[in-house]
Amino acid sequence: MERVAIIGASMTQFGQREEWIRGLLAEAGSACLEDAGVSADAVDHLYVSNMASGEFEGQTGVPNALAHDLSAVPAYTARIDQTSSSGGAGVYAAWQSVASGASEMTLLVGGEKMTHRSTAEATDVIASLTHPVEYKHGVTLPSFAGLTARHYLDKYDAPRESLGKVAVKNHKNGVDNPHAQFQKEVDLDTVLESPIVADPLRLYDFCPITDGSAGLLFCPESVAREYADEYAVVSGIGGATDTHVVHERADPTTMGGVVNSAEQAYEMADADPDDVDVAELHDMFTILEFLQSEDLGFFEKGEGWKAVEEGVTDRDGELPINTSGGLKSKGHPLGASGVAQVYEIYQQVIGDAGARQVDAETGLACNVGGFGNCVTTTILEGQL
Amino acid sequence: MERVAIIGASMTQFGQREEWIRGLLAEAGSACLEDAGVSADAVDHLYVSNMASGEFEGQTGVPNALAHDLSAVPAYTARIDQTSSSGGAGVYAAWQSVASGASEMTLLVGGEKMTHRSTAEATDVIASLTHPVEYKHGVTLPSFAGLTARHYLDKYDAPRESLGKVAVKNHKNGVDNPHAQFQKEVDLDTVLESPIVADPLRLYDFCPITDGSAGLLFCPESVAREYADEYAVVSGIGGATDTHVVHERADPTTMGGVVNSAEQAYEMADADPDDVDVAELHDMFTILEFLQSEDLGFFEKGEGWKAVEEGVTDRDGELPINTSGGLKSKGHPLGASGVAQVYEIYQQVIGDAGARQVDAETGLACNVGGFGNCVTTTILEGQL
Repeated sequence: MERVAIIGASMTQFGQREEWIRGLLAEAGSACLEDAGVSADAVDHLYVSNMASGEFEGQTGVPNALAHDLSAVPAYTARIDQTSSSGGAGVYAAWQSVASGASEMTLLVGGEKMTHRSTAEATDVIASLTHPVEYKHGVTLPSFAGLTARHYLDKYDAPRESLGKVAVKNHKNGVDNPHAQFQKEVDLDTVLESPIVADPLRLYDFCPITDGSAGLLFCPESVAREYADEYAVVSGIGGATDTHVVHERADPTTMGGVVNSAEQAYEMADADPDDVDVAELHDMFTILEFLQSEDLGFFEKGEGWKAVEEGVTDRDGELPINTSGGLKSKGHPLGASGVAQVYEIYQQVIGDAGARQVDAETGLACNVGGFGNCVTTTILEGQL
Repeated sequence: MERVAIIGASMTQFGQREEWIRGLLAEAGSACLEDAGVSADAVDHLYVSNMASGEFEGQTGVPNALAHDLSAVPAYTARIDQTSSSGGAGVYAAWQSVASGASEMTLLVGGEKMTHRSTAEATDVIASLTHPVEYKHGVTLPSFAGLTARHYLDKYDAPRESLGKVAVKNHKNGVDNPHAQFQKEVDLDTVLESPIVADPLRLYDFCPITDGSAGLLFCPESVAREYADEYAVVSGIGGATDTHVVHERADPTTMGGVVNSAEQAYEMADADPDDVDVAELHDMFTILEFLQSEDLGFFEKGEGWKAVEEGVTDRDGELPINTSGGLKSKGHPLGASGVAQVYEIYQQVIGDAGARQVDAETGLACNVGGFGNCVTTTILEGQL
């Protein structure tokens, strides 16, 4: 198997953007090529991570449009959709294209344009990924999050405040991310007193609706040094589903997709959770950061909340989590999010994260589709 | 690079179906596993080729639903969209997952549910893949086909009747395909006197709107014999884009995506056009069969029409094309079509095509997205 390197990365401003999906993708795609100093001619595979450009703005065929906009024709192109983990699925597709020997240079661009739709409309498009029986009963992902949070707090005797501290931490990290949607701190009282959305979760326990795009450039490691002095290797990657019907899960506080995808990634990287120096987790809802930090093996089951309380996951803690600000403050443009997670890990392991830099040789990104319905885990190692 | 085998295949009845997308995908997925005698437990990667389940029926996350419906959880899953060539893109993704070493058993299921929408609505969803400037001026794929057909007939001094003969041939082939939407012959007069859609093309020059699904099961060739006495190897595969704006092409009668993807596939297979014994081409419009048969190198440029006139591409001709009935009579459920093309070639090269069987060791499938915006070409060799 050919070892796969990442030699360039980009991320647009996340937030409310004027551009449509094509403009956002083109912006991140060009910036990524520029970051690596690689011309579009060299790209032979171009993947687009995007969940719902057709539903959100009536535009399909965006990969072909992007190939045109970047002057990357005749590069092969396709769209990869895995709902809210479309970005991670795109990373996996790009890795496969290089690892299989099909590609010498694959550009992945993830993006979503959402803010022109109301929160209710956007939430409804996302909710259409749930089981039809769940959907018919009005279930949305935020409502699952509320039920799960209640269960977690009860089962592990965790204080409500611990969830709020995830939001506080990630907003604090987002202050130093110039691309984040919210670059401002929030205090715990603000979180705990914000309007209830799905009890016990409140407004500040949720990520926002966001427009944005991010890019990554992949090539065989054997040629990476021709392009970059520092690069990262995808040392481990894996993907797995969990039950489509959430109530069929034996333990609603465990995400089987996280456990299984991480096992694959660790095995491939010949690593274990202790080897991870920094991680980007899918904090679409604050409760998800607890679940993933446990299911990835960073902390014992039911103890993720303590790690947050004790500052272990702070930027200056033992295992910084969501140094980018996470989905919570950075924003969550569905197809872009998983790509932007790997962008952050890439910056950290090549030592290019600026004010957010932590001491990290190995980093991990975990991207969650649906309510854990499908998950990808990616491990990067910096090569300096 | 690990050689990749196909060890099972399936195809549902194409046509107007009562089932929604989930039901169609589950039907083809189960049938494919049954065909190979492989249990769902063995599947580690599950790809779904589908263009627009969200736009057509408000259902997203279908790969996760399919993993549930087939009891394939925790297999990784994602949706691959490349508009009308989503099926071919799925074949490429499935090939990559096995060739990269990530997967020991990948199930690909392509499908689309369309007939509950009017022809105008369905055509509009598809037209949303065109360049926004084209779309704004009312361009649809059928209108491109009309313009191209006019140009081709003029440039190569081809008679209008030759286009009609593509429809006659493919309908004749479809009679022996029990899964085809139309299992009846049409005569040339019927085609030539059918209502004009996009001059010079008439109703019978176009494929129908169709519901349906098809499946393929992939594994490393090194283990294929454990599962199957006869199997096929993906000896060549490639994909390429052409300009997104159709009028930017130097010659509108040449599809660059076909030329480039075929070059890759031939090179990988160490084959040339003469080695191909049977082919499935993307005859969404009759004119496209001429263009592809030339751009794939089967015939000189401007001579594809003569091959049809002379019976070269008949089932008993030198190079049978669209023995399945093609999109023209079999139907064109977008995400399923490219998978069903490879299903037909698989049946032919393993000698299991029944009444449609021709003498074939090597076969080729060419799947066209948009109006040639992105194309995949796949070459199979039977291993008996």
